[in-house]
Amino acid sequence: MKLSAICEHINISCESELEISGLNTLIDSNENELTFLQNKKYLKDLENTKAAAVLVHKDFENLVPKNTIALVCEEPYLTLAHISKLFAPEVIETHGEDCVVGIGSKVMPNVYLGYNSTIGKNCNIMAGAYIGDNVTIGDNTTIYPNVTIYRDCNIGSDCIIHAGTVIGSDGFGFANTKDGKYIKIYQNGNVEIGNDVEIGANCTIDRAVFKSTIIKDGVRLDNLVHIGHNCILGNGCILTGQVGLSGSTKLNEYVIMGGQSATAGHLEIAPFTTIAARGGVTKSITEPKKSWAGFPLMDHREWLKLQGRIAKLLK
Amino acid sequence: MKLSAICEHINISCESELEISGLNTLIDSNENELTFLQNKKYLKDLENTKAAAVLVHKDFENLVPKNTIALVCEEPYLTLAHISKLFAPEVIETHGEDCVVGIGSKVMPNVYLGYNSTIGKNCNIMAGAYIGDNVTIGDNTTIYPNVTIYRDCNIGSDCIIHAGTVIGSDGFGFANTKDGKYIKIYQNGNVEIGNDVEIGANCTIDRAVFKSTIIKDGVRLDNLVHIGHNCILGNGCILTGQVGLSGSTKLNEYVIMGGQSATAGHLEIAPFTTIAARGGVTKSITEPKKSWAGFPLMDHREWLKLQGRIAKLLK
Amino acid sequence: MKLSAICEHINISCESELEISGLNTLIDSNENELTFLQNKKYLKDLENTKAAAVLVHKDFENLVPKNTIALVCEEPYLTLAHISKLFAPEVIETHGEDCVVGIGSKVMPNVYLGYNSTIGKNCNIMAGAYIGDNVTIGDNTTIYPNVTIYRDCNIGSDCIIHAGTVIGSDGFGFANTKDGKYIKIYQNGNVEIGNDVEIGANCTIDRAVFKSTIIKDGVRLDNLVHIGHNCILGNGCILTGQVGLSGSTKLNEYVIMGGQSATAGHLEIAPFTTIAARGGVTKSITEPKKSWAGFPLMDHREWLKLQGRIAKLLK
Repeated sequence: MKLSAICEHINISCESELEISGLNTLIDSNENELTFLQNKKYLKDLENTKAAAVLVHKDFENLVPKNTIALVCEEPYLTLAHISKLFAPEVIETHGEDCVVGIGSKVMPNVYLGYNSTIGKNCNIMAGAYIGDNVTIGDNTTIYPNVTIYRDCNIGSDCIIHAGTVIGSDGFGFANTKDGKYIKIYQNGNVEIGNDVEIGANCTIDRAVFKSTIIKDGVRLDNLVHIGHNCILGNGCILTGQVGLSGSTKLNEYVIMGGQSATAGHLEIAPFTTIAARGGVTKSITEPKKSWAGFPLMDHREWLKLQGRIAKLLK
Repeated sequence: MKLSAICEHINISCESELEISGLNTLIDSNENELTFLQNKKYLKDLENTKAAAVLVHKDFENLVPKNTIALVCEEPYLTLAHISKLFAPEVIETHGEDCVVGIGSKVMPNVYLGYNSTIGKNCNIMAGAYIGDNVTIGDNTTIYPNVTIYRDCNIGSDCIIHAGTVIGSDGFGFANTKDGKYIKIYQNGNVEIGNDVEIGANCTIDRAVFKSTIIKDGVRLDNLVHIGHNCILGNGCILTGQVGLSGSTKLNEYVIMGGQSATAGHLEIAPFTTIAARGGVTKSITEPKKSWAGFPLMDHREWLKLQGRIAKLLK
Repeated sequence: MKLSAICEHINISCESELEISGLNTLIDSNENELTFLQNKKYLKDLENTKAAAVLVHKDFENLVPKNTIALVCEEPYLTLAHISKLFAPEVIETHGEDCVVGIGSKVMPNVYLGYNSTIGKNCNIMAGAYIGDNVTIGDNTTIYPNVTIYRDCNIGSDCIIHAGTVIGSDGFGFANTKDGKYIKIYQNGNVEIGNDVEIGANCTIDRAVFKSTIIKDGVRLDNLVHIGHNCILGNGCILTGQVGLSGSTKLNEYVIMGGQSATAGHLEIAPFTTIAARGGVTKSITEPKKSWAGFPLMDHREWLKLQGRIAKLLK
């Protein structure tokens, strides 16, 4: 889409005929992408962005690099929301190439196979499963009944996805208007799931707003686990029942999270960390191989000791 | 159904040929409805009820208004449970008018469209969705795959309902018998969802026991959110992942609830209230625009201070 | 399957032509089953096992009863994982007897009925439901839309299972290899649900690794409840919204668990116990009819008192 057409949509004057391929963050944008600055803590990223153009408040226009076009507006995030819709594909595609199904794969009745999708060899796609458009599934993967895989998501080989799980639903993102409306940030990214991943029943894994929500090889998710948009789960992470990860949580490899534990968003957890059941992680954990518990979170042994001290208050 | 027929079912003697249209609370019943008094704290409501008839213990028979027929019984709530079944429609309808689908709406394969239902213009109804009988959906609404909408529910325009979500499942209600059985209170109400509402994946929104569970305009629900029967969510409320509302919770407009927070039932939360992640609300909040945290719930800043004090117990 | 064939698969030398019917625990194995000892706390069970053969570390070989064949290996649990796959049936059956549907039962469109399954009289099987192979359902039971019932599970009469619920998904079990891989323990057990059970929307009930996950008569589950593998719920248990039970939790009759409460695994809760909302049970409860709250769990009244004492820390 031409930058001039985008700008017309948002009532910003701009003649550029540059072709914009999509939206992205300041730091990840390439020279064909459009980005935005909403929060001052990303000013450094603004100065280093390679984006074709940036939505920016006039106060920071002077910091925009010379190869990037400044699109000055009052509310960059809200403007981004309006633009995001322009890049959203049709919800229901009505044409494309028929899904390709590999040798040895079984597809049960009442399955929907989207356009331009590919399923590998020796897979089981069970009744009621929905495989969206432009999805790829590797070899030897089982999709249990009534699983929904939204468009553009990729699933590896040797995976098992249990019934009712939803992969690629929209992340929870919107911008506020002054009169109390929420304008949807269309979630134009996807979900990428590696090999040898098992996902329990009725989990939800949201697609990324830009780029990908990523579940790496060997991950195990129990039932009713919620993974927000743009999370990254490293190799071998284990999340037990009813765990919830807010958006943009990064778990390094072999993080283990106990039942009903959760994270706030935009944080990173060091490799081989263990979070006990009900632990609530609100800050990044940088030291690997430690065990944590509680909410607020603390060293697991300290938490146990603290519970003893608290109980003494009854005496 | 004639009152005499209802009474015959529960072995109460009553000759009245009054036509009873349904069940309702003391305060909301009209002159064609049947109600009950179980809990003494509603005695005032009994005195003011406009109901056609009331199930009531003999101790309170004298408080029944003169235009209301007193149906005296030992266990009014249990008796109500038995009656509720009489008003429950067939689970599977076998005839009625075909669903009307508006211009520009796309209905994918493997969708079930119930009798006497109406879908507006430019909607997307995706594969595996179940649209029950007597449902209405407005314009421009997207129902993602494997969503279930039970009978009698109404969804507005410009809504998005993500995959696997269930709308209109039965509220959690039953009466106990003395020998340890649970008698179902049939949930003969419905769910009413306004315009511009987005609901995440694998949420559950229960239908009301009487009247409606209500989600007003502009509400945003994240994934795996549970809304009990007869809840009311005001305009613009935001509930993030894994929030749970017990039955008859009323959120006024623009209440924001953080991840895994929850409410006990039968309480009301003032407008523009913020409940932090994991907050547990057990009493009504009357003052608007405040932030709360913890379980038991307290002022958010107090909670932060308290956590500091608690941590000092380790010293 | 012949024991010699099993042993060949795991590179243990064994000539026995004994026919092994399946895997089981030390204590529950019969003379046709294979078992394992991983944890020293089960040494007593080893001495009393009736199993045909046992996977055992060489340190404990001498404790194996004389009628049981010792299969000596370095990592019995991991070896068990490898063997479990041999006993897993095909994910998608391609032949068998057609499902038998009783008189008066209604089966809607888009339902999958598995081979060798039986549905009783006057049932409602709604659109999008998946009834796996070798499933039995009693009389007068309603299966709402998009419910998934995995193979081999049994549901009683007079049950109601709400939309999106998954019954019989795999329990969360795997053995670790030294190089950080997880080897699936195939969950070859099932789920047994009694009569007069109502299960809310989007619940997940995992099948047992061996034998059965059991939900007895009269149980009521609210929405989004998670039941781990091998749990047993006694008659009349009530679990409200978003409760989570870890594997091998045993609830005796009439246990009530409030919203978002949870249990650690391998524990037992006495009859008529009440766990308040958010209660976290980490040890068995042996005394019946008590009320508990908090995490760590304590007597409910003590918990209330403790919260008062904690609040005083702010003064």
